[in-house]
Amino acid sequence: MNYERFISGRANWIKGSALAEVMKRASQLQRQGIKLISLAAGDPGPNLIPRKVLAELAKEILENNPKSVMYTPTNGIPELREELAKFLEKYEKIKVSSDNIVVTVGGSEALDLLGRVLIEPGDVVISENPAYVNTLLAFEQLGASVEGVLVDEDGMRTDLLEEKIKELKAKKKKIKFIYTIPTGQNPMGVTMSEERRKELLEIASKYDLLIIEDTAYNFMKYEEKGIPSLKSLDREGRVLVAGTLSKVLGTGFRIGWIIAEGEILDKVLMEKQPIDFCAPTISQFIALEYLRRGYFEEYHSKALQGYKEKRDVMIEALEESLPNAKFTRPIAGMFVMLFLPEGADGMSFASELMEKYHVVVVPGKPFYTDESGKNAIRLNFSRPSKEEIAEGIKRLAELYKDKF
Amino acid sequence: MNYERFISGRANWIKGSALAEVMKRASQLQRQGIKLISLAAGDPGPNLIPRKVLAELAKEILENNPKSVMYTPTNGIPELREELAKFLEKYEKIKVSSDNIVVTVGGSEALDLLGRVLIEPGDVVISENPAYVNTLLAFEQLGASVEGVLVDEDGMRTDLLEEKIKELKAKKKKIKFIYTIPTGQNPMGVTMSEERRKELLEIASKYDLLIIEDTAYNFMKYEEKGIPSLKSLDREGRVLVAGTLSKVLGTGFRIGWIIAEGEILDKVLMEKQPIDFCAPTISQFIALEYLRRGYFEEYHSKALQGYKEKRDVMIEALEESLPNAKFTRPIAGMFVMLFLPEGADGMSFASELMEKYHVVVVPGKPFYTDESGKNAIRLNFSRPSKEEIAEGIKRLAELYKDKF
Repeated sequence: MNYERFISGRANWIKGSALAEVMKRASQLQRQGIKLISLAAGDPGPNLIPRKVLAELAKEILENNPKSVMYTPTNGIPELREELAKFLEKYEKIKVSSDNIVVTVGGSEALDLLGRVLIEPGDVVISENPAYVNTLLAFEQLGASVEGVLVDEDGMRTDLLEEKIKELKAKKKKIKFIYTIPTGQNPMGVTMSEERRKELLEIASKYDLLIIEDTAYNFMKYEEKGIPSLKSLDREGRVLVAGTLSKVLGTGFRIGWIIAEGEILDKVLMEKQPIDFCAPTISQFIALEYLRRGYFEEYHSKALQGYKEKRDVMIEALEESLPNAKFTRPIAGMFVMLFLPEGADGMSFASELMEKYHVVVVPGKPFYTDESGKNAIRLNFSRPSKEEIAEGIKRLAELYKDKF
Repeated sequence: MNYERFISGRANWIKGSALAEVMKRASQLQRQGIKLISLAAGDPGPNLIPRKVLAELAKEILENNPKSVMYTPTNGIPELREELAKFLEKYEKIKVSSDNIVVTVGGSEALDLLGRVLIEPGDVVISENPAYVNTLLAFEQLGASVEGVLVDEDGMRTDLLEEKIKELKAKKKKIKFIYTIPTGQNPMGVTMSEERRKELLEIASKYDLLIIEDTAYNFMKYEEKGIPSLKSLDREGRVLVAGTLSKVLGTGFRIGWIIAEGEILDKVLMEKQPIDFCAPTISQFIALEYLRRGYFEEYHSKALQGYKEKRDVMIEALEESLPNAKFTRPIAGMFVMLFLPEGADGMSFASELMEKYHVVVVPGKPFYTDESGKNAIRLNFSRPSKEEIAEGIKRLAELYKDKF
């Protein structure tokens, strides 16, 4: 049966994700028995997550707590929201009541729920350029058109941001919010400087815009420069937060949160139950006990040390094997952006690298909001082992030298 | 700050759920130390779920499988989709390729994802009247207007369905699909007869409509009458399925699925990653091992026996204490709908019952698509113990006799 006549207009805004395509093809190859080195996924390191602790917690909770298999309140288990409030105050210097925290199915759902409340079809969303492709797709699904502001080593170029806003206002475009990952940005790996953060908040205030701060990588800082989160600097209630424990506990648990207030919070709470009923209960209880029993303190600095070492292996491997190539040097997060020579095609490079060299990377192009970035390649260093990173970069460099 | 100017037009379609309100108030009372008997939630019985087995599985998986804390493919772990395909063939007589199954965050996300692909703002969705309130709210959030078709002991009145379609067509309304829970309907507890199922499919074919079959209660059948699922009768590809393991494993795991094909499947796959990235990984692996190792066969008939006994306790308690009251007698699912005397207000009755008698029930009114059902009260028998059911109905009957 041809279903076209049943498809809604909004479905025209639904576009495929390059990430999903890469993961699908990689999964096909793996099922054919091919061993791949993946520098693709945005996952933490499976061996830097205390899986034994999580395993014991899961067992204890499922055995002893009948609530662990049941629905929970739509905004999250109250005790978890209280732990998160303490956690955010301690590590992010954000003072927030547990009533302003909504536990979501990862940071992805947090962004979709906020988008559904805020985005009018035709609205402009301003993001970094490049920016996390799945968020751009999520906002575009809701009818937003995304305008990007270039990123350099200090994060979003706030000078260009103001120009962009003026230009859009002149065209009578409606802008609601600015989306940013200020720390360990995906895909660039850069971190916004404190000065830029303050400028960003000033610009948002001047032009009466909201900011959605995606804090996905805030717990992956390798050089403590004391750069404050945007929310902790926010005096006007302009910053909405989409946060996650994905990079602490593992991406598979799907525990994230929204920080919001007023009418936005009200609408998020109302829209959420019919969409998900609640975030996964067992994940919520594991997160609760992990935070409450101090496992975060116990395991986090060791994990950070591990990620830092992996980052260093990647940077050194790139410096050695591709001394003339351009790439970013992250102080937070899990990504390095590598630039092939000007004019090169990252999409076909990534494809050839997977098919012939069995190394999976994500082309940078889909993360860009304009026609630039054709030559960019996103590399992940958090999930692979140090040996895989070294070997992966070695093979990548072979193809690079072969082609350029 | 007042956020009203930032809120999108579509947010006007977001309405609060009566279920969320009831759960929130109940949670407040519980946190004040008040012991409540809940006949409200749509949860299975915590002691009829083999939590010890799930606990062992969770521990084993988290300890031994590094993938258990990582992202998984957006459409679900391939092995789980294959197990589900076998499971659906065995228990539902549905032949479906694992490629046509998309693993979702419970049945709720399945319905939202389908709605986002199908519903054009202004479209009419036909549902049972009454129908599951959260699904109605989910579809209304997307701009649908819901038209209900009355339900009797044999499910949706297909004679009225055809009248309703003609009436809507005459008004030039655009109808895309019919939403139904044919087995163990929520909130009525009734099951659609085989004859009506065939009529429903014929009508859908005649008027070129899709059907969304919500199979949430298909694994809670207490009297095996061999009534086939709609999907198993579907020869034209008109039936989209929203299924779930919530009533088998527990609602908190958030493992559901969509069965779809063609352009609808394509759009679901594309829209899903930016919204949730993937269903919770640990839940997916638990579901996979639970099915693969035969625990469903091992534990399910015992659980069914337990639910059947609970149902019988509720029906007997109602018959004894309220011999003149009208209520449904379910052969599947987890709900009995009780009708207070004509003209009575179920909302204030439910509220008084919670505040003064500490028994939580859900008023039926919000489940209705029209102004009827004011006197209805939805009672759950799957989660409470037999003692709680008996005591809960006793207290309910006290208030009932006091008022009417």
